[in-house]
Amino acid sequence: MVDITHKSPTLRKAIAQAIVQVSSQHTIDAVLNKKVPKGDVFEMAKVAGLFAAKRTSDMIPDCHPLPIEYTAISYKVEGLSIFVFAEIHTIYKTGVEVEAMHAASVVALTMYDMLKPIDKGISIEQIKLLEKRGGKSDFGKQIK
Amino acid sequence: MVDITHKSPTLRKAIAQAIVQVSSQHTIDAVLNKKVPKGDVFEMAKVAGLFAAKRTSDMIPDCHPLPIEYTAISYKVEGLSIFVFAEIHTIYKTGVEVEAMHAASVVALTMYDMLKPIDKGISIEQIKLLEKRGGKSDFGKQIK
Amino acid sequence: MVDITHKSPTLRKAIAQAIVQVSSQHTIDAVLNKKVPKGDVFEMAKVAGLFAAKRTSDMIPDCHPLPIEYTAISYKVEGLSIFVFAEIHTIYKTGVEVEAMHAASVVALTMYDMLKPIDKGISIEQIKLLEKRGGKSDFGKQIK
Amino acid sequence: MVDITHKSPTLRKAIAQAIVQVSSQHTIDAVLNKKVPKGDVFEMAKVAGLFAAKRTSDMIPDCHPLPIEYTAISYKVEGLSIFVFAEIHTIYKTGVEVEAMHAASVVALTMYDMLKPIDKGISIEQIKLLEKRGGKSDFGKQIK
Amino acid sequence: MVDITHKSPTLRKAIAQAIVQVSSQHTIDAVLNKKVPKGDVFEMAKVAGLFAAKRTSDMIPDCHPLPIEYTAISYKVEGLSIFVFAEIHTIYKTGVEVEAMHAASVVALTMYDMLKPIDKGISIEQIKLLEKRGGKSDFGKQIK
Amino acid sequence: MVDITHKSPTLRKAIAQAIVQVSSQHTIDAVLNKKVPKGDVFEMAKVAGLFAAKRTSDMIPDCHPLPIEYTAISYKVEGLSIFVFAEIHTIYKTGVEVEAMHAASVVALTMYDMLKPIDKGISIEQIKLLEKRGGKSDFGKQIK
Repeated sequence: MVDITHKSPTLRKAIAQAIVQVSSQHTIDAVLNKKVPKGDVFEMAKVAGLFAAKRTSDMIPDCHPLPIEYTAISYKVEGLSIFVFAEIHTIYKTGVEVEAMHAASVVALTMYDMLKPIDKGISIEQIKLLEKRGGKSDFGKQIK
Repeated sequence: MVDITHKSPTLRKAIAQAIVQVSSQHTIDAVLNKKVPKGDVFEMAKVAGLFAAKRTSDMIPDCHPLPIEYTAISYKVEGLSIFVFAEIHTIYKTGVEVEAMHAASVVALTMYDMLKPIDKGISIEQIKLLEKRGGKSDFGKQIK
Repeated sequence: MVDITHKSPTLRKAIAQAIVQVSSQHTIDAVLNKKVPKGDVFEMAKVAGLFAAKRTSDMIPDCHPLPIEYTAISYKVEGLSIFVFAEIHTIYKTGVEVEAMHAASVVALTMYDMLKPIDKGISIEQIKLLEKRGGKSDFGKQIK
Repeated sequence: MVDITHKSPTLRKAIAQAIVQVSSQHTIDAVLNKKVPKGDVFEMAKVAGLFAAKRTSDMIPDCHPLPIEYTAISYKVEGLSIFVFAEIHTIYKTGVEVEAMHAASVVALTMYDMLKPIDKGISIEQIKLLEKRGGKSDFGKQIK
Repeated sequence: MVDITHKSPTLRKAIAQAIVQVSSQHTIDAVLNKKVPKGDVFEMAKVAGLFAAKRTSDMIPDCHPLPIEYTAISYKVEGLSIFVFAEIHTIYKTGVEVEAMHAASVVALTMYDMLKPIDKGISIEQIKLLEKRGGKSDFGKQIK
Repeated sequence: MVDITHKSPTLRKAIAQAIVQVSSQHTIDAVLNKKVPKGDVFEMAKVAGLFAAKRTSDMIPDCHPLPIEYTAISYKVEGLSIFVFAEIHTIYKTGVEVEAMHAASVVALTMYDMLKPIDKGISIEQIKLLEKRGGKSDFGKQIK
């Protein structure tokens, strides 16, 4: 684990995405109309993501435990793709990129789990960092 | 959470994959030659995956806790793609598909975390179920 | 911890309740109309309860780890009281009463946390077992 | 999860209570005389409460992880009521009310679990915040 | 992780020990007379051991999750040595040796943590398996 | 739990050891030549130790949660003894001695678990603090 004792805390932000790729418009409709038998997919998966953000250092060996000071999970539907966005802020000595990636991936896995009874053709695509602010370098377009 | 009290335990197997897509051959070489500063990527990420498999029901709301009786993590390199495979077996009333997907995703996230100091262009692609055996239906080609 | 190696697994069910006592009709309306700033209270608290049911043996020293095979969280509003019901089933050697009480209490605490920005007068009342089936004795009215 | 990056850390204190309501003086005597078969109820439940205080953000979706810097669990017996008090201090950007409520509730649940073999009529009552100091407003009488 | 899907569940027992070696009789007296400022050392460390037994598969990569059906923590004082014994039973396909070793070690670490304010010369010695029953071979003298 | 709200954060370091005592040179050779069937013992046990360092306050009742800012696991082989060293740094109000002891013990337990199929005579010896820096007093020889 990288030694960060000498670093100063600064405001760090990261946004990551994951894409839940479904196989039919029926699945999208069931999500949007809250007709999925296991419950409200967006609300339930959001909660799983909130927990996952906080538990990142418990899952990834070299991640430092850090004070997650903001987490937001949001969604966008485009065709058969459901985009999951996880935005995390902290004031700490290291960034929250992996935390955002981890949160996005757990949101997507929760959606997969909730949707697999009604759609056997789901995959999770393009888990990646969209933006980061703070630290040695910024990345991506400006977080509002 | 689906009621499974009336179901009988049977042998269940699942294999899932995740692809860690890197941006340069240098990254692949560093992994294969064990030159990544944070340590042996394949061995360390495997351990994170072993834990993740066992902790799936703690991360995904509707997943039943179940006795993970076998987990194997393996890798295949093709060009700039590192394929992660997670295979899980249980004898229980419900399958281990989400467990395999979760393990594969945490292995991939651990690799992302270990490699981001040397490669800023990594994403995780195609987390999906490759095969399942047991339960109402099989899927994919026969698990050996 | 009580030795249960000699016991036989049987179907066990338990229902527990907790009451979230709020101080104004405005709070009830905000919950029912999904106008609470932190999100959909019933859906989010349900997810916390699903996790809590599964994590009971990790929180209560003498509780045996056991295969939670069904969890359902439901609600009933009466005046300024929001009743939380947690129903849990397992087939195991010991009952799920504490699991149901734990799940109900965490659902109620999540509601407290989500509602305290809009209502400073909330308490949690009457966490208790309503019904159990299986084991040495039944208790309460018949679980349907 | 509320964004607290802009807030300044200050000393925060909270005291919450839970009441374990038993059905017979025999139960009270067994607790006080350390005759409960599962062990010393006050000492064992205290440990469960210490852990619960630290694990609050892992159980309640919107709770920020924060540095618990003091936790004390205490008890008072009045008739058939055992009052549990959980006092928590931190220096952080947000308060520890939910942490204190969570700790008190887990102490009470542990007592319930330890006492149910000898008393079938126990419930948990009045989990509520008694006092808080620090943050936008104080509440309750001065914490000594 | 070793594949155990083909194995049959049988009764398994294991007893492990750890020795907390203190540097003065004063420390032993403080423990026995319950005069340690942090609390009742034997009772509190026992609870940490109960949780540790249940969380072994969450700490040790290749350990299978299994139904801990009995855990007992006991102590014996000889001179400046405090012997910790952890006995665990399960009916499962694999043994509980590591679970017993893990529980004993966490009991000992908790005692170390509670005693270090009053004794700077403590070490933990001889964490080892004393006995096992069930599985391919027995080991040690007969568990009563 | 000791109240540390009034203390100032300073740099704290601790190094602890554990000794894995094996019964044959064959075991040492298998570890060094990476011939142990369960995998690369040093790499896998290191990961378990990284997680254990971060989870100390979740296992030991009175340990404060704190920001682990550096963890290193190293090994030295002398005859049939494998020395495990865990070094941890933080900038916080309390030290990381127990964290280092806990990490060393979990590394040793993981090695025990991985090696027991090939060596039935392993014990864990001398878990102790080697050095600490920061806080009221230093201990041991200077950490480089």
